[in-house]
Amino acid sequence: MVKKIILDCDPGHDDALALTMAVASPKIELLAVTTSAGNQTPDKTLNNAMRMLTLLHREDIPVAQGNQTPLVKPLETAPEVHGKTGLDGADLPEPDFAVQEIPAIELIAKTLRESSDKVTLVVTGPMTNAALFLRVYPDLAKEKIDQIVFMGGAMGLGNWRPSVEFNIFVDPEAAKIVMNFGIPLVMAPLNVTHKAQILKNEIEEIGKINNPVAHAFYGLLNFFEQYHENPKWGLKGAPLHDPCTIAWLIDPEMFETDWMNVDVETQGDLTRGETVCDYYLLTGKPANTEVLLGIDREKFIKLIMDTMKSFN
Amino acid sequence: MVKKIILDCDPGHDDALALTMAVASPKIELLAVTTSAGNQTPDKTLNNAMRMLTLLHREDIPVAQGNQTPLVKPLETAPEVHGKTGLDGADLPEPDFAVQEIPAIELIAKTLRESSDKVTLVVTGPMTNAALFLRVYPDLAKEKIDQIVFMGGAMGLGNWRPSVEFNIFVDPEAAKIVMNFGIPLVMAPLNVTHKAQILKNEIEEIGKINNPVAHAFYGLLNFFEQYHENPKWGLKGAPLHDPCTIAWLIDPEMFETDWMNVDVETQGDLTRGETVCDYYLLTGKPANTEVLLGIDREKFIKLIMDTMKSFN
Amino acid sequence: MVKKIILDCDPGHDDALALTMAVASPKIELLAVTTSAGNQTPDKTLNNAMRMLTLLHREDIPVAQGNQTPLVKPLETAPEVHGKTGLDGADLPEPDFAVQEIPAIELIAKTLRESSDKVTLVVTGPMTNAALFLRVYPDLAKEKIDQIVFMGGAMGLGNWRPSVEFNIFVDPEAAKIVMNFGIPLVMAPLNVTHKAQILKNEIEEIGKINNPVAHAFYGLLNFFEQYHENPKWGLKGAPLHDPCTIAWLIDPEMFETDWMNVDVETQGDLTRGETVCDYYLLTGKPANTEVLLGIDREKFIKLIMDTMKSFN
Amino acid sequence: MVKKIILDCDPGHDDALALTMAVASPKIELLAVTTSAGNQTPDKTLNNAMRMLTLLHREDIPVAQGNQTPLVKPLETAPEVHGKTGLDGADLPEPDFAVQEIPAIELIAKTLRESSDKVTLVVTGPMTNAALFLRVYPDLAKEKIDQIVFMGGAMGLGNWRPSVEFNIFVDPEAAKIVMNFGIPLVMAPLNVTHKAQILKNEIEEIGKINNPVAHAFYGLLNFFEQYHENPKWGLKGAPLHDPCTIAWLIDPEMFETDWMNVDVETQGDLTRGETVCDYYLLTGKPANTEVLLGIDREKFIKLIMDTMKSFN
Repeated sequence: MVKKIILDCDPGHDDALALTMAVASPKIELLAVTTSAGNQTPDKTLNNAMRMLTLLHREDIPVAQGNQTPLVKPLETAPEVHGKTGLDGADLPEPDFAVQEIPAIELIAKTLRESSDKVTLVVTGPMTNAALFLRVYPDLAKEKIDQIVFMGGAMGLGNWRPSVEFNIFVDPEAAKIVMNFGIPLVMAPLNVTHKAQILKNEIEEIGKINNPVAHAFYGLLNFFEQYHENPKWGLKGAPLHDPCTIAWLIDPEMFETDWMNVDVETQGDLTRGETVCDYYLLTGKPANTEVLLGIDREKFIKLIMDTMKSFN
Repeated sequence: MVKKIILDCDPGHDDALALTMAVASPKIELLAVTTSAGNQTPDKTLNNAMRMLTLLHREDIPVAQGNQTPLVKPLETAPEVHGKTGLDGADLPEPDFAVQEIPAIELIAKTLRESSDKVTLVVTGPMTNAALFLRVYPDLAKEKIDQIVFMGGAMGLGNWRPSVEFNIFVDPEAAKIVMNFGIPLVMAPLNVTHKAQILKNEIEEIGKINNPVAHAFYGLLNFFEQYHENPKWGLKGAPLHDPCTIAWLIDPEMFETDWMNVDVETQGDLTRGETVCDYYLLTGKPANTEVLLGIDREKFIKLIMDTMKSFN
Repeated sequence: MVKKIILDCDPGHDDALALTMAVASPKIELLAVTTSAGNQTPDKTLNNAMRMLTLLHREDIPVAQGNQTPLVKPLETAPEVHGKTGLDGADLPEPDFAVQEIPAIELIAKTLRESSDKVTLVVTGPMTNAALFLRVYPDLAKEKIDQIVFMGGAMGLGNWRPSVEFNIFVDPEAAKIVMNFGIPLVMAPLNVTHKAQILKNEIEEIGKINNPVAHAFYGLLNFFEQYHENPKWGLKGAPLHDPCTIAWLIDPEMFETDWMNVDVETQGDLTRGETVCDYYLLTGKPANTEVLLGIDREKFIKLIMDTMKSFN
Repeated sequence: MVKKIILDCDPGHDDALALTMAVASPKIELLAVTTSAGNQTPDKTLNNAMRMLTLLHREDIPVAQGNQTPLVKPLETAPEVHGKTGLDGADLPEPDFAVQEIPAIELIAKTLRESSDKVTLVVTGPMTNAALFLRVYPDLAKEKIDQIVFMGGAMGLGNWRPSVEFNIFVDPEAAKIVMNFGIPLVMAPLNVTHKAQILKNEIEEIGKINNPVAHAFYGLLNFFEQYHENPKWGLKGAPLHDPCTIAWLIDPEMFETDWMNVDVETQGDLTRGETVCDYYLLTGKPANTEVLLGIDREKFIKLIMDTMKSFN
């Protein structure tokens, strides 16, 4: 069965790959794209989403812009990871279609209302738009969203503060709203995404695939990989965070998962934005999240290669 | 000049009086009413707003329902103050018109777009809807809202926690968003609203005014006054919190005010929801709020009496 | 009856006056002096306490040094109020006696053990030493300390952050320990100390008193007064914070007071160090503190003048 | 070279084993024992330490009692882990010697002053005494303590809250004081102590060793093991937390370690008491702690067996 999704993202290199995988997969129907502020400023992430859809010749998919800032915190971005544009490393075509003239959450509402089936909300950036949507349209959300699949958080070590991952760091209050809303969650934390590495030689393989999409990703992944060469990360390649969400939708068997309660620390001094994962069942709070912890990396890389080749 | 306003409220006895004053005043044009969860649950406050407009024969004013819960905290209500219905003390007519089928913030957006003039947003309940509106429609807000006038907070003693007032207590994160957004603010804190008391004999005077509106308020104010008879408050009558906002719009000369920076504590253990008022200029943060600190109580009561008589 | 006290202070101009009043009063027996870090660094406040006792010819009173830093926070001092030495404005004699070679809390313990009567602990600086003492010698404290009288905190407006007074700001965790320990407390907050002003002409009167102590305070108070001339404070003179504690011990009738629960916010972002005063009995927590709220300023100034003259 | 240590503990089954290992090892000279509140109430942990020293015929080692409560938080104990006495599972002799009549931190100070060599402070309970000592005797601490070796914290999953280990949970402020004081730290977190398991058959081996100490530990370890049979922990035996500290002093080669900055979250709502371990060097704060992450379990168990047999 084809899975209908809305993708809320802040491209971002790995968001761009997640978007591309969603477009390419016959198992997924991408109904709409909304953009958030995170990896870069909101105008840049919007432009990047539209540049990617232009590259992919999918200008038919409606795009709307979301939040300008996180709910409560000032915006912090990650130019050191994603470059000045948010998608440095490739020459992408300028958008050749128009953005929807409604805010992201109105597009989400419209898309849900028009869909006869339940829809999966995939969030690969900070959760600001998702939280705003849930607070403004709670009944519609409960009726039409079957699950929220997101990249974010960590059970243990973070990548932006010692125990805090970037997406949740940017908007902890939004994440707390989403986590406690009541819709089932699937979480791709750093625990799994740091295992979902693409190696340098695999990026070189992409470089040999002869189509404009693969060509763009050859540049994008090379750029993205460089940030992760710092030995402090202990990585062999580039962790493909956001694509884990789409990979899970396409083939959940690729992952090892565990159900547990996940909540968000919004009050901490050092830990604000930490996803508090009750792995040992210490809180008595009900499990609300299926947490991806392991991945079959070979299968994952094959999926990415197949995605790249599908544009031949 | 007639001042155009949108009233976001959670009636609530004093909200109901604020609404009535806005309807009665020739200086104010009430464009729309939106309701929030606070004094009572969201369905009750919506129903109360609609019952009041039915009583006032102003079914032409569009009403939309807002948030079901605060942004991050679970909802806490104040039945001990406002009774089981949220407007205990009077027999009010059931609503004889329909609520708008859009969320509160869409009605606010629509109302602003349709207004050629700038509009004042008046908030007499928790600031959840206001915060959601500002985050979803930031450009429209900056273009069309000239000021946000709200009842809430305290510079010093609170009424729900030692230093925390109820409206801000219910949704501190929303208040923080509104305070730091950049639109000029006018704040009616407990410092002024505890001076804006109506005395028992003045309520009796209302009882002698012979029209259905005054009749209803005779019952409502008697109920409301009883909660405040507890000697711990040191009050002589009932503090008319929310009407201070409308009174300020009608006659700002009635008030003594001071400009200062006001921010909201969202991290405290004992103080979460406190409005942090920089009266002594200790923070270096710019003044963002005109804080009402004193009131000419005689003028204020006369305005209320005139309001009541205007329905004869 | 003569009241036996231990004074824990961080002189500081107003600490120096409190110390002098304690020495001068026939109603008070000053058993020991301990010093804390606060108004200035710990070595300076120790030196200042010893310089004052040298000036007062009371080298018999044992002095011990206390904490180097607050419990948890890094030390912040107030050189803008008290000058580079912590007692700028007068030429004070260098200490002509030796400090005790034990830490402050050991001197407190020794003094209590040697006293047949119960002793009042007076704290006019941050509460670090008091808190350390209570945690290390809890049984001795309960047996021998009848009350803790302190200058600190505010019910409403602070002087270091909008709602936070300096002494509690410096060490909120220490204050929380003291407030919740169980020994009865008397608190002189800014509410009363800002009323305990000495006016410029009254300082001039001190200048006319012909003894070395009055001469020193003429210089000290002139220096101290200048900081408070900033119109933002709305003061007419210099608020004599710390002397309120000793004045209360000498003549409690000079003050209007109220009993209530006082706790300390240690978790806030904007309010860390706020004394949360439950004036309206909102928390259900038992009254633990007699809070000084009003003062007969004329009596207070007369006590200070009499103190100055007593050294003739 | 023989390593001189002071052991601050809250026995507790694993504390008792750590104490016994310290007494038995020719490489360690145990100068003094101080007790804290944690695994059980302070009177019980004191009594347990003295019962153990009585069992071990080491009544010559001075014992002093420390804190009654944590610095700021109320005391929480762990009777579900350690039983009603704090050392359930064995019949231990009642103490046949007297406790020192000075508080723990005075005994620590005295012991340090009397030692010509630098001393290691080993903490196997909450850090309240250590923090009090550092704040009251900072110069002596810097002069005479060469390192603080403690069991506590976790890099990732906790055992009392999702990310919080029990010892640090009990007194986060104390832990923060110790972590930031400046004396080098060695930390045995759950990451290593959950690997330092003793298996059921190994406990049976201890049961076959024929001396009163081994006999006592056969009972103690059987009791302790039962709590950890809950499958949620995923353990095969009983994790011997506190003995890791002494094992590291005896044979550091037994461990894999990493240097990093470790700080403590004292402000969090869900994470208060979390040890924030900067494994990926994200904070720029200097490394202050050698963190034990791996252990050669065979060597570790052999050390315990040798300890047991040494009392033959």
